[in-house]
Amino acid sequence: MLGPVRQLLPAGAYIYQFKINSKAPFVGAGWSWHQDYAAWRLADGLPRPDLVNVGVFFDDVSEFNGPVVVVPGSHRDGLVTKAPAPASPASHQHVDPQDIALTPEDMRTLVRRLGMRSVTGPAGTVVLFHPEIVHGSATNMSPYPRRLLIVTYNDVRNMPRYAGQPRSAYVVGRDTEPLQPEDLPLAVPALADSAVGVPA
Amino acid sequence: MLGPVRQLLPAGAYIYQFKINSKAPFVGAGWSWHQDYAAWRLADGLPRPDLVNVGVFFDDVSEFNGPVVVVPGSHRDGLVTKAPAPASPASHQHVDPQDIALTPEDMRTLVRRLGMRSVTGPAGTVVLFHPEIVHGSATNMSPYPRRLLIVTYNDVRNMPRYAGQPRSAYVVGRDTEPLQPEDLPLAVPALADSAVGVPA
Repeated sequence: MLGPVRQLLPAGAYIYQFKINSKAPFVGAGWSWHQDYAAWRLADGLPRPDLVNVGVFFDDVSEFNGPVVVVPGSHRDGLVTKAPAPASPASHQHVDPQDIALTPEDMRTLVRRLGMRSVTGPAGTVVLFHPEIVHGSATNMSPYPRRLLIVTYNDVRNMPRYAGQPRSAYVVGRDTEPLQPEDLPLAVPALADSAVGVPA
Repeated sequence: MLGPVRQLLPAGAYIYQFKINSKAPFVGAGWSWHQDYAAWRLADGLPRPDLVNVGVFFDDVSEFNGPVVVVPGSHRDGLVTKAPAPASPASHQHVDPQDIALTPEDMRTLVRRLGMRSVTGPAGTVVLFHPEIVHGSATNMSPYPRRLLIVTYNDVRNMPRYAGQPRSAYVVGRDTEPLQPEDLPLAVPALADSAVGVPA
């Protein structure tokens, strides 16, 4: 995945966040309309939206299990909400989408102009998306899970500027060395006593 | 709408329920998976599932504003849940879908076999559906409303058998005379002082 990321962030990229967004069958909740960068500017003082999200589908995603829904092209406008941080955020470790939710009026205008599109596909699908694209999702009413791995790469020139205590290391990556692709064959461990083992 | 209804209920049909199911933009809630007839048997003692639902879209319905989602063909199996009424229902005037919700296990089996389909289309679309089709819906995350008129016709030989106090007349229709189509031109009232008025 590093290849396309380095095309977008040629100065070098490191892993800023690595998370699995899991929506359970029947009960998985929706997410309010928001822009990721609004959260990261707020929580970690990231100076610029120079990041790339890479989403990897662990499950088939359809209209029924709460796909991410984007407003196509909305990332070209920058941050929609210029408002300051909420006085009492829902969490200090995690920026709740509700705290950075776009207003109904802003959403009406945006969607009238640009429409909506759900991001669907079979398990294994990889999608890249901009940290300022407006997106949200509905509930998962289906009997199927919707687990989405999201790896967020940050530009090495775009380091967090923490106002106070930084968020935990399991929320925001501390290793900011630029990642180097290894152009080597995948090392597959030999499977002892297995007829289908690949020689090491 | 009475034409196709009378094809399905040739002994005669009357209006059992007439309601608008309104899902507001951004906040409209979902409905658990259920079968309508389970509610009507429970609340009004309807002997048989001899009813027809006619849905009329007041708004464009897409995957984004909480469409009804059906399990196609599920009405052929009759009631999935044979369980008795819940001991403490959520409401006495209205059977909450939660009280008659299908179990996750039943839903997994059904959907694996029959799949899911969302009922979408432009405003003005009319859909007929069986009172035993398994259906539900997700939240409305879009900036658009989703208002759905549902007229439920009951067979005149399938009268309610109330165990106690009948539900209010605004919930369950009292006029059980079989409806007769009027094959007459629509009477349009004249619009006084209007250039676009239609002559009476």
